[in-house]
Amino acid sequence: MDLILISIGLGLLAIVYGIVTSRQVLGASAGNEKMQEIAGAIQEGAQAYLNRQYTAIAIVGVVAAIIVGVALGMIPAVGFVIGAVLSGVAGYIGMNISVRSNVRTAAAAEEGLQQGLTIAFRAGAITGMLVAGLALLAIAVFFYVLVGPMELAPNDNEVIFGLVGLAFGASLISIFARLGGGIFTKAADVGADLVGKVEASIPEDDPRNPATIADNVGDNVGDCAGMAADLFETYVVTVGATMVLTALLFSEVLGDLLLPMMALPLLIGGACIVTSIIGTYFVRLGNGTNVMGAMYKGFIVTAVLAIPLIYLATQYALGDMSTVLGAGPSGIEFHGRDLFYCSLIGLALTGIIIWITEYYTGTNYRPVRSIAKASETGHGTNVIQGLAISLESTALPTIVIIAAIIGAYQLAGLIGLAFGATAMLALAGMVVALDAYGPVTDNAGGIAEMAGLDESVREKTDLLDAVGNTTKAVTKGYAIGSAALAALVLFAAYTADLRRYFPDANVDFGLENPYVIVGLLLGALLPYLFGAMGMTAVGRAAGDVVKDVREQFKEKPGIMDYSEKPDYARTVDLVTKAAIKEMIVPSLLPVLAPIVTYFVIYLIAGQNEAFAALGALLLGVIVGGLFVAISMTAGGGAWDNAKKYIEDGNHGGKGSEAHKAAVTGDTVGDPYKDTAGPAVNPMIKITNIVALLLLAALAGH
Amino acid sequence: MDLILISIGLGLLAIVYGIVTSRQVLGASAGNEKMQEIAGAIQEGAQAYLNRQYTAIAIVGVVAAIIVGVALGMIPAVGFVIGAVLSGVAGYIGMNISVRSNVRTAAAAEEGLQQGLTIAFRAGAITGMLVAGLALLAIAVFFYVLVGPMELAPNDNEVIFGLVGLAFGASLISIFARLGGGIFTKAADVGADLVGKVEASIPEDDPRNPATIADNVGDNVGDCAGMAADLFETYVVTVGATMVLTALLFSEVLGDLLLPMMALPLLIGGACIVTSIIGTYFVRLGNGTNVMGAMYKGFIVTAVLAIPLIYLATQYALGDMSTVLGAGPSGIEFHGRDLFYCSLIGLALTGIIIWITEYYTGTNYRPVRSIAKASETGHGTNVIQGLAISLESTALPTIVIIAAIIGAYQLAGLIGLAFGATAMLALAGMVVALDAYGPVTDNAGGIAEMAGLDESVREKTDLLDAVGNTTKAVTKGYAIGSAALAALVLFAAYTADLRRYFPDANVDFGLENPYVIVGLLLGALLPYLFGAMGMTAVGRAAGDVVKDVREQFKEKPGIMDYSEKPDYARTVDLVTKAAIKEMIVPSLLPVLAPIVTYFVIYLIAGQNEAFAALGALLLGVIVGGLFVAISMTAGGGAWDNAKKYIEDGNHGGKGSEAHKAAVTGDTVGDPYKDTAGPAVNPMIKITNIVALLLLAALAGH
Repeated sequence: MDLILISIGLGLLAIVYGIVTSRQVLGASAGNEKMQEIAGAIQEGAQAYLNRQYTAIAIVGVVAAIIVGVALGMIPAVGFVIGAVLSGVAGYIGMNISVRSNVRTAAAAEEGLQQGLTIAFRAGAITGMLVAGLALLAIAVFFYVLVGPMELAPNDNEVIFGLVGLAFGASLISIFARLGGGIFTKAADVGADLVGKVEASIPEDDPRNPATIADNVGDNVGDCAGMAADLFETYVVTVGATMVLTALLFSEVLGDLLLPMMALPLLIGGACIVTSIIGTYFVRLGNGTNVMGAMYKGFIVTAVLAIPLIYLATQYALGDMSTVLGAGPSGIEFHGRDLFYCSLIGLALTGIIIWITEYYTGTNYRPVRSIAKASETGHGTNVIQGLAISLESTALPTIVIIAAIIGAYQLAGLIGLAFGATAMLALAGMVVALDAYGPVTDNAGGIAEMAGLDESVREKTDLLDAVGNTTKAVTKGYAIGSAALAALVLFAAYTADLRRYFPDANVDFGLENPYVIVGLLLGALLPYLFGAMGMTAVGRAAGDVVKDVREQFKEKPGIMDYSEKPDYARTVDLVTKAAIKEMIVPSLLPVLAPIVTYFVIYLIAGQNEAFAALGALLLGVIVGGLFVAISMTAGGGAWDNAKKYIEDGNHGGKGSEAHKAAVTGDTVGDPYKDTAGPAVNPMIKITNIVALLLLAALAGH
Repeated sequence: MDLILISIGLGLLAIVYGIVTSRQVLGASAGNEKMQEIAGAIQEGAQAYLNRQYTAIAIVGVVAAIIVGVALGMIPAVGFVIGAVLSGVAGYIGMNISVRSNVRTAAAAEEGLQQGLTIAFRAGAITGMLVAGLALLAIAVFFYVLVGPMELAPNDNEVIFGLVGLAFGASLISIFARLGGGIFTKAADVGADLVGKVEASIPEDDPRNPATIADNVGDNVGDCAGMAADLFETYVVTVGATMVLTALLFSEVLGDLLLPMMALPLLIGGACIVTSIIGTYFVRLGNGTNVMGAMYKGFIVTAVLAIPLIYLATQYALGDMSTVLGAGPSGIEFHGRDLFYCSLIGLALTGIIIWITEYYTGTNYRPVRSIAKASETGHGTNVIQGLAISLESTALPTIVIIAAIIGAYQLAGLIGLAFGATAMLALAGMVVALDAYGPVTDNAGGIAEMAGLDESVREKTDLLDAVGNTTKAVTKGYAIGSAALAALVLFAAYTADLRRYFPDANVDFGLENPYVIVGLLLGALLPYLFGAMGMTAVGRAAGDVVKDVREQFKEKPGIMDYSEKPDYARTVDLVTKAAIKEMIVPSLLPVLAPIVTYFVIYLIAGQNEAFAALGALLLGVIVGGLFVAISMTAGGGAWDNAKKYIEDGNHGGKGSEAHKAAVTGDTVGDPYKDTAGPAVNPMIKITNIVALLLLAALAGH
């Protein structure tokens, strides 16, 4: 029990960091009146959107909670509510910090680059620590109450399904937040660019563009609140699934070690909160202007310090690193130290995926430059090369993930994979900090532009923002990599669950079973269909924005010569309504697909085949989803930076034909990288979690 | 043996049809001198390309034949050579007919629409019947020699690996032809459009564009020769794999019925050649101008007549439709009539997939119109909506294929699926006829334009060509659907092979085995990587074309006022070299991937896990490839017709901003639908065939 209490303490430490740091950030100057007015409009819009979004989600959430309660009982329902509420809280606070820090970053950039960086990065770090801290607290406190005061055994069905319910709550909110936020941000962004840059030939963030406030609101509700909810969810799911898998696989072998081994993932999470907090203080510029280098310094400190701390945590939890824990693959025993090695694999995987993503989305490397070069021959070749890069970008991450799977499995079987995933997620605090930094600087640039601040300020915010593009891309690579591992852990839990609750079922998961093939095909289809819906939603909503802006230009001809002010709120309102409407159906797809598949195959071929098809569907959605998500997020990032690279004066620079082509590519990449691609992450996991819940319900739990 | 001889006779019938009809077509007027000159240039270019392509392939082929001979012995090597040579012959003849019929179609269109349709469709039918006939003859004669004069048992290893060798030969040539032809056609097309339409503002097929002959050559070497080789391969692989699977699964059960049951797929193929020939005579316009309706009449007659003929064939082969053949899933016996029902599933699947593809690529339905509408707001939204449709278009075909898998499996287990695939492929003659019609009419339009024929002629060829776009798209949907089924049959052969040649191996194909997950991930990666290479190749080669054309415009300023003639041959030569160079590496990817995967996993985890990972890789490439191929081919077709729809006067018509955006979408869709997407078909199968050969080599056969 100490272990759990220590983890709770470390989770609280993250919250304290968040409160203290947010005081510092909010205490900074909020700039002049004009800046505050603009920031106020963004705040108002973001607040209004999130209020409506969470109201809509709450309705779905209440229905889902009742279903979980009726089907599985009180404890899973309570878990669901905790997961759902805290997921919402994480997104909400993140957005609130973000919309208050943007204007302060702009103000600080007036003083200097380091000052701007400090405010923006601290804002990100607050969100990061709150995400990691709240996620850790959610599981640790819930688990503590169940096995402490309520005196349930750690491998009791109530505990297992309670944890699954918690994960479901987090996931369900997360998919709505990811998708709703993603649709909002890209509909506004694409719409604003189409009428602004392309039709009216006014620059980005020009105050004359009625969609510009909506665009800035989008950065906050999509990149910040959406990503926060996403990684909160992945954290809860991964740590929860590792605990559940431990209970399912090792109940009989471990004896008294079961509770400490279930608590070890919590302790690893706690340890990395400490190293993340330390890491944030290493994000400093030094003498140069290498903002990305400063960021990486912070990340590397976090990851390297995690090594000894995870070692200590494992030692402390298991009493001795040479403790035999169970039989790994082919019956060979594995030890406590093997779990430590698996954690190292998780840390290494994080670093390598970040590096690969930077290669594919950074302006210094072949991929982005090849897209920039292809822009010279027009819109068509830009898009062709971008699609080629997006397809290609799946190769290295997949191979690295495969190596991690094999390595972890060779060390400690399936649970080794789970601990690798846990260590990867334990770094979430720092990674979210890097990501949440992005929308803050993006907004800061927008505010500087609209408030007519000195050119030099915009230059500094541009420097900060260029890095934000990369960190946002990098976080997405990390999010999808970790989501895939988390989903594999969930899949392992599904098969273990099946053996536990249906010991008499004779399920053939062999690839020769046609129902397995059917399941794999159906699973692989889900991310395609989901992606199609997301892309269509953005296209449709962006079209509405274009029409609205055109109408505003017509109704108020004075906008162009600044004699009239556009109605920003009208556009924000329009995008809000569209995003909320469009997010519902796709979000329900991964919830309903496993249930429908199970019952249809059950009617055709009986229960065994239905279980086989359902299991294969889970794996199909992981395999298919990994490729769809990586290709979309990396491809989109590459398109974005190819445009930036041209704007930096290459291939003709701004205003050239190549630039126009690159703007098209960027527009295409927008919903790829910020709507459809990242929303695949929670989709993969929610499918797996719903299958676990279905098993529990069928077992009459 | 009668059965095989009858099949050989029916195969010869197809050849006779081809010879007789080609006399008719070649006897038609070849138009005026100017037209013949242009057609001559296209012929010359196509001939030169194919000669070089097949020379390059021959080198790879000889090396592969020696490896097959050394590793597996004489008979598989002979099979390989037969498959390879006939695959080449099918493509070669198809191209030759096509480049001679284009000008005759243009000349016939001067007389009337029906006359043009007759020539163009007959040209397609010649290629179609030759593909089906040669494919049937290749297997039937080879099988006859092995089990007749050479007196081998039908389930002898030599026979089984001979058939696999034959399939490998066909596949290896086919992937080169598909990819090389695909790169050629789209590099020329994209390049010609980029400098012609976009930069120089001259219409498509304008004789002033130096790339215009290369573009027309591309239609023939890509759509015609490439598709012919592709479907020749799928035919050989499907029928061959069905025979192999019968031998592997039913050797002990069937006794004397083994030979007739192995010959039944040949007889089904023969029966459908008869119905296809009959069907060609139903392609007539009637009173209206509904060209598509005329095509469908021919297809429907072919498919409907196939029902009684397949019934008779099954009856004749098995003696009685109520013969018990073996035990299906869950041990229930299945009968001869069940194989007939499975064949009906194959026929139905063909019809439904054609219908779905038309829905997604036809100008009368929502998908294409939504892309056309999205073009109004610019290049970006056109591409976004196109990508959304391309993702969405995978859903219905997948669900229909799943239904077919379940239906066939419920009737007769794995072999039922094989017979369903065989019946689907048996219609290949008619389907290739529809496809090969496309490049003929496309060229006819080009020749009419370049030769300055009367407007009314171009109108007629345009009417014919619009249908060609749809039939080309429809054939691709059919090709990928049948490729997926064929690959599933090959996968079943892999697992059956494994049991036969490695009876002591303890391979766990369960989804819980991490090496299965690793294999699935690797397999799913292949089509992405392959697609990336194909897209990059087109982008690069198209860029070269753009530069060449720009240089020609500069060197010969008189081109624009017709006072100088562009050097067409120079562009053709450039594209030829680029296509040959670019096709090699991607084509070797599916050959090497299974071998490398086997040995790497073997070194890490031993033979059982290596077999498991390899098996999973095979299924991964099928599942992953199906989605990549459908999304690319359907998406590309939709983009193409969205442009056509706008050119028909919608959303502003030709020259509008929407049209420019639609041209961009079309350009993006080109390498999607004509290079990367269709080349995935042979790639999927070649991976599976190489695995079968690897098993044979490892077993020391």
